[in-house]
Amino acid sequence: MLQKMTLMENKPLILITNDDGVFAKGIKELVRAVKDLGEIVVVAPDKAQSGKGHGVTLDMPLWYRPAKLDEEIRAFKCSGTPADCVKIALFKILDRKPDLILSGINHGSNSSVNILYSGTMGAAMEGALHKIPSIGFSLLNFAPDSDFTTAGEYARKITQKVLSSISEKPVCLNVNIPYDDPQNIKGIKICRQASGEWREFFDERYHPSNRRPYYWLTGNYYNFEPEATDTDEWALSNGYVSVQPVTCDCTDYSAMEALQIGIEGL
Amino acid sequence: MLQKMTLMENKPLILITNDDGVFAKGIKELVRAVKDLGEIVVVAPDKAQSGKGHGVTLDMPLWYRPAKLDEEIRAFKCSGTPADCVKIALFKILDRKPDLILSGINHGSNSSVNILYSGTMGAAMEGALHKIPSIGFSLLNFAPDSDFTTAGEYARKITQKVLSSISEKPVCLNVNIPYDDPQNIKGIKICRQASGEWREFFDERYHPSNRRPYYWLTGNYYNFEPEATDTDEWALSNGYVSVQPVTCDCTDYSAMEALQIGIEGL
Repeated sequence: MLQKMTLMENKPLILITNDDGVFAKGIKELVRAVKDLGEIVVVAPDKAQSGKGHGVTLDMPLWYRPAKLDEEIRAFKCSGTPADCVKIALFKILDRKPDLILSGINHGSNSSVNILYSGTMGAAMEGALHKIPSIGFSLLNFAPDSDFTTAGEYARKITQKVLSSISEKPVCLNVNIPYDDPQNIKGIKICRQASGEWREFFDERYHPSNRRPYYWLTGNYYNFEPEATDTDEWALSNGYVSVQPVTCDCTDYSAMEALQIGIEGL
Repeated sequence: MLQKMTLMENKPLILITNDDGVFAKGIKELVRAVKDLGEIVVVAPDKAQSGKGHGVTLDMPLWYRPAKLDEEIRAFKCSGTPADCVKIALFKILDRKPDLILSGINHGSNSSVNILYSGTMGAAMEGALHKIPSIGFSLLNFAPDSDFTTAGEYARKITQKVLSSISEKPVCLNVNIPYDDPQNIKGIKICRQASGEWREFFDERYHPSNRRPYYWLTGNYYNFEPEATDTDEWALSNGYVSVQPVTCDCTDYSAMEALQIGIEGL
């Protein structure tokens, strides 16, 4: 018995979160894919938090409660954003620092500029700020009942690899997985973030009583560099799992010198 | 008359937003500081949106209405996040692409990792994604009635400089301004983002009726590199206005090679 407990304590602690909410299929599939790789604790939003980016909740208090997700693991639902979930897990719920943070599996792509809007990646980047290896996983399918089998297999392989190299520089990874059968996936590509933008279309509708307009945010993604072969967009549209190493340093080092000349003297 | 209209049309179009809401003192002071430098249109949140990062609103529709801010300029309040405000301005409200986007002046610092949580900088980075020069301004004082005189002067100087070099590579800048008299400010420093983290403290309180706990997110900032003299934190604590050039590319290029060896073969 004592031996078993010691063994448990030596298992890596893996915090799992997401942005689709604790009851989404993607997080259940992620738990299932990695649950034997460590001691798992889930702290995830109590509702969908897509598009919240790295946002945190400052104007309202937060709460968390136990959630039923998988009988064998501890799980909590939290009223905040994905980044809030990581913060409350690290500084309130967990009694030790996790060895790894996993976020997802997101229902929908977080490639290219989507990383900036992504709650999934906001959570992973929050982990990285605290020097904890963190990985966000996303499947290129929005459907609530998507088949996560292949995504789960890649999530497991990449998690194992990161756990086995944990003593090196902590990594933050943005992993996107094509929605396809495993035999059609050509492998994994380490990629940079494609440069692009969303060209928005605001779907105008009218309030049923006061007739005032309101707008749904919709749009189309436009890739500024479709020819480049080293981007996540290229990898995904050519049948690869894309893995983008992520930094939380937003400094544009290439612009510093010109700005020193132009602005420091003002 | 015709000549005057042509002259007006040749003025640069400057979109102004913020995250403290359209009625905050900081945005009024920013408008006042730059209003003669171009044609100004304000599209800002109808309420405080601090900490929303680059978040966008996907689960609710948005609306915007005219707002009274300054009789000489067009202003709108919008129900969404700062990034939503930029999107609805670009794709719905404005009839041409702005030459410049200004965000702020924020009540409180957005140096170091705060850039990731900052709605002010989320708006500026949204502008940068659409290849529009964009600047976020923040004053190192949270008080609603802060004196923005010095901050406004620096905002004006930096805006003029960016407008005059607008044909070059578009820039995105994160400008933080010490709260001090102008004679005590030593100048402007082009900086990189300091590496640091917030160590959170969750202030526990209890619901008045059901006695369940809830938590306010609070914390202390910890600078991982207090000795470094090229960071925004160093500049600000040594009396300089900090200007961080910002990229929306989150790729950690320094990690790519090792990951190619370790992960592509899985």
